[in-house]
Amino acid sequence: MSGSGSGADDGATAPGPQPRRRGRPRRSPQDAGPGTRERILQAARDEFAERGYDKASMRGIAKAAGVDAALVHHYFGTKDDVFAAAIEVSFEPVLAVSAVIGRGGTEGIGERLARYFIGVWENPATRAPLLAVVRSALTNETAAKVLRTFVLRRLLERVAAELDVPDPTFRAELAASHMVGIAILRYVIKAEPLASADPERIIELVAPTLQRYLTQP
Amino acid sequence: MSGSGSGADDGATAPGPQPRRRGRPRRSPQDAGPGTRERILQAARDEFAERGYDKASMRGIAKAAGVDAALVHHYFGTKDDVFAAAIEVSFEPVLAVSAVIGRGGTEGIGERLARYFIGVWENPATRAPLLAVVRSALTNETAAKVLRTFVLRRLLERVAAELDVPDPTFRAELAASHMVGIAILRYVIKAEPLASADPERIIELVAPTLQRYLTQP
Repeated sequence: MSGSGSGADDGATAPGPQPRRRGRPRRSPQDAGPGTRERILQAARDEFAERGYDKASMRGIAKAAGVDAALVHHYFGTKDDVFAAAIEVSFEPVLAVSAVIGRGGTEGIGERLARYFIGVWENPATRAPLLAVVRSALTNETAAKVLRTFVLRRLLERVAAELDVPDPTFRAELAASHMVGIAILRYVIKAEPLASADPERIIELVAPTLQRYLTQP
Repeated sequence: MSGSGSGADDGATAPGPQPRRRGRPRRSPQDAGPGTRERILQAARDEFAERGYDKASMRGIAKAAGVDAALVHHYFGTKDDVFAAAIEVSFEPVLAVSAVIGRGGTEGIGERLARYFIGVWENPATRAPLLAVVRSALTNETAAKVLRTFVLRRLLERVAAELDVPDPTFRAELAASHMVGIAILRYVIKAEPLASADPERIIELVAPTLQRYLTQP
């Protein structure tokens, strides 16, 4: 946060000779090396997950990625842009939901969806970035807007496209709202008995709800 | 946040005559007058609602209530204690749920519950403090613990006591999770089409879900 970490010389890793600047030396985009973009995104996800949108800083992200803050700006632009890019990757497993739905038609769609979402949340690797987004979106209007426009709209439209019910987007959103609420009580608030419940028991009870929202006329 | 407000002297609240200190003159509890406690609680709810747990300060609450920070400490103790007291009042309408459930038995319980919760959230006076708690609990472990122990446990136990199903607390919590998820997508993230949906349409679709969780063996 505090400006530590920008000190030294990311330039040390540069291949060729570079003119030394006054103040902080910086990597130019050309010498950032392969994988830098991914490393920054990973650092951004971690930073947003741990600190939430408001407290996360470009400098903290840059430090964790081992690059200069200017490079983060170069790749992504503003903090909002970094956030949008970071959560877009985070939501890839969630957005893959249309494949889950498409497979097998609407029979058993409720259980497949419940199992898929619980699986995404049970996996620590996919849970952390989701938590980051949810936490940020609940306390910051910019983050909420990113979630609303980048993620939810696409997610809901993909699910809705597979449905044969009136108001399919509304139906998909009701199903999503239930999964969001479960995630919040189980993984964020850690309210018992839901927090310790066997995932299979949750799926068993929730599947018929999702099935009804997504298929019942 | 910055350590302001911790400076001096909760000792100012000691009984008996007090030496005047340097700096701001302060009201002693004796001259706080009737309604002070309520005014502080109201200010606390507003402060937590607007700023979230982390950013809310005892000093900000005191200022909004027109009292000294030491008086807030005197009445409530720490910031955690103020938070707990503030949200306890906020949740009174929610905790009144057992009356809603008790009335009329389990027939139609799903619709009564859905209507009751949507009503609490549609009313700006009750929505604001609920939003405050949800926002705070999602970003702060202390606030999450307060919500978990003071509110959810009591709420769920009251609802569970009225039910005749296996694992009634788990069932009540699944119902609660759906209402929490709807509240978050509709009122916090403001995701469409749920954000603009007619409350009656939400109740109509959600009631059977709650009914099933709370009554189906």
